[in-house]
Amino acid sequence: MKTRAAVAFEAKKPLEIVEVDLEGPRAGEVLVEVKATGICHTDYYTLSGADSEGLFPSILGHEGAGVVMEVGPGVTTLKPGDHVIPLYTPECRECDYCLSRKTNLCQKIRLTQGRGVMPDGTSRFSHKGKPLYHYMGTSTFSNHIVVPEIALAKIRSDAPFDKVCYIGCGVTTGIGAVIWTAKVEAGATVVVFGLGGIGLNVIQGARMVGASQIVGVDINPGKVPLATKFGMTHFVNPKDVQGDIVAHLVELTGGGADYSFDCTGNVKVMRQALECAHKGWGQSIIIGVAAAGEEIMTRPFQLVTGRVWKGTAFGGARGRTDVPKIVDWYMDGRVNIDDLITHKLPLERINEGFELMHEGKSIRSVVEF
Amino acid sequence: MKTRAAVAFEAKKPLEIVEVDLEGPRAGEVLVEVKATGICHTDYYTLSGADSEGLFPSILGHEGAGVVMEVGPGVTTLKPGDHVIPLYTPECRECDYCLSRKTNLCQKIRLTQGRGVMPDGTSRFSHKGKPLYHYMGTSTFSNHIVVPEIALAKIRSDAPFDKVCYIGCGVTTGIGAVIWTAKVEAGATVVVFGLGGIGLNVIQGARMVGASQIVGVDINPGKVPLATKFGMTHFVNPKDVQGDIVAHLVELTGGGADYSFDCTGNVKVMRQALECAHKGWGQSIIIGVAAAGEEIMTRPFQLVTGRVWKGTAFGGARGRTDVPKIVDWYMDGRVNIDDLITHKLPLERINEGFELMHEGKSIRSVVEF
Repeated sequence: MKTRAAVAFEAKKPLEIVEVDLEGPRAGEVLVEVKATGICHTDYYTLSGADSEGLFPSILGHEGAGVVMEVGPGVTTLKPGDHVIPLYTPECRECDYCLSRKTNLCQKIRLTQGRGVMPDGTSRFSHKGKPLYHYMGTSTFSNHIVVPEIALAKIRSDAPFDKVCYIGCGVTTGIGAVIWTAKVEAGATVVVFGLGGIGLNVIQGARMVGASQIVGVDINPGKVPLATKFGMTHFVNPKDVQGDIVAHLVELTGGGADYSFDCTGNVKVMRQALECAHKGWGQSIIIGVAAAGEEIMTRPFQLVTGRVWKGTAFGGARGRTDVPKIVDWYMDGRVNIDDLITHKLPLERINEGFELMHEGKSIRSVVEF
Repeated sequence: MKTRAAVAFEAKKPLEIVEVDLEGPRAGEVLVEVKATGICHTDYYTLSGADSEGLFPSILGHEGAGVVMEVGPGVTTLKPGDHVIPLYTPECRECDYCLSRKTNLCQKIRLTQGRGVMPDGTSRFSHKGKPLYHYMGTSTFSNHIVVPEIALAKIRSDAPFDKVCYIGCGVTTGIGAVIWTAKVEAGATVVVFGLGGIGLNVIQGARMVGASQIVGVDINPGKVPLATKFGMTHFVNPKDVQGDIVAHLVELTGGGADYSFDCTGNVKVMRQALECAHKGWGQSIIIGVAAAGEEIMTRPFQLVTGRVWKGTAFGGARGRTDVPKIVDWYMDGRVNIDDLITHKLPLERINEGFELMHEGKSIRSVVEF
């Protein structure tokens, strides 16, 4: 079939909206009509050429929501008409990782996904007879996609696509880091570094589970009103702190954070996040993605005295199991997504969405097909 | 009263065996006759002058066992005749740390202990009218000591002092790191870096909880026979590995260690220990103490993909609660200490114990009074 897509023909160039060819679903695969997709910094990172594993030409996008149109042979858990969120972290429920009960990092289709192809090693996309690479197993910048059954979370049909698409990445990453990776408990003290989209979702996750003190740290005071609305109880601007930011945060939290989260991708901030965690038990969770080759550092004494250094990918969420829960929480009014979708664009203006993000003017831009 | 002690009058000098004066126990304090004490690398570290917080003149030693002789006012949990192990990590059961249920690092007397004095700010030891500092709140190189009630674990009276004194530090640190800090489960894969006393105790802890694969890593193949006796299933000598030791260990363990332990104090090894942990869930625990100013490093991607970096002090053991359990395990034959006590010396020859350790000839030397 033919479909419309924003294609990344090469790095550092704007996406081009073109008609592409899409093959139908093979065994274990599903054809989905994408209704809406968020534009995430990770798409930008790949398009910028900074990601050494980036493949071109490809169709980017990994934060979508849509409707099943057709299922391939052997697909048993989905049928045409089902509403779904594509998963860049699938959940096969049969690999060693899924069965470990300790991680969400399903490895079933990891290798082919990383190579930009379907599990059988081929692409379903082509343009003028030449194959286009898939991206993160999702490619939600295309109006129609073919993805493996294990990479689709079935969600309720009354959830609005232009909001819940954000659950496909940012919302789940932030909230999940709190509830599944850190397992923050009621009454806890939380410090969040970076008040962008991920940081705001960390904050609302912390509020949802009953954290008592939620400290936001950002060099931009313009972030305060929305962060406060999402649950931030204290704001710290490192530029206003005289002396050591870590000592300041330890004092503010009465001994250190029970849980701290880095949502900046800056390795120096990651160190601050660890070191402001409470002696004896404080956990620090890295969410932000550092630039290639950068390293985190600390004195081992920080760990020997009880701090724990962790990271999270997709918030520790098992895609098919946990993503539908977050959709429910959104529909129940427990999770705020509406305030995070600051811009909506038609596919033709998708490049504007990258500019808005780059300029810091948007939290999330969503493209509707 | 008068007692005999090995006094560290200054750094880098041998200990001197002299008669010292010991004041009796004040409120909340207990007079203990030390029957035996191990000589630990931490004592050596302080004596060497490398520990910037080391105080002189002082009475070192922190790995003892003995008998209560007298209790001060208000002491309710101990009486003369009770057998005890002094605790450099006390357990008051009422500070925020003890009540957190998340750490063993009781802070009740932390500050005064660090200053080499009793909780009331004074020393009980003196020599020729001049006060001597206490060390780690224990000073087990003295035949008699006064310590706070909260820094004594009451143990069964049939346990031999010359063996269970080692539970005061090394045994508990190694076994505890496995069972209380890492919480290794049956069937797990464990990699242990460094096959000295701590490493051997990690190994027997891992065996006790039913780990399936216990890999020992050391550059000295002479460690193999005893490590094997303690439960090591595979030995890796980094000098014999062509290429990357991390890749070798990941392959040997079928994807990485569920739990890895650094017992070397070398920050480069700490990094290897983290990076050989299994993607998705592998935990790496730092036990070894690094040299002053040294830092650990890794790419944050290691944590984002699910590895967890932790440390442990005194094996995460709550002294009064958990030390008696390990004494029981020793008496039940579940924990081997006898093979680790390689040398026994009278107090007069305590300096020989430091030499044996320094030359790598001993696992543990024990001084009997």
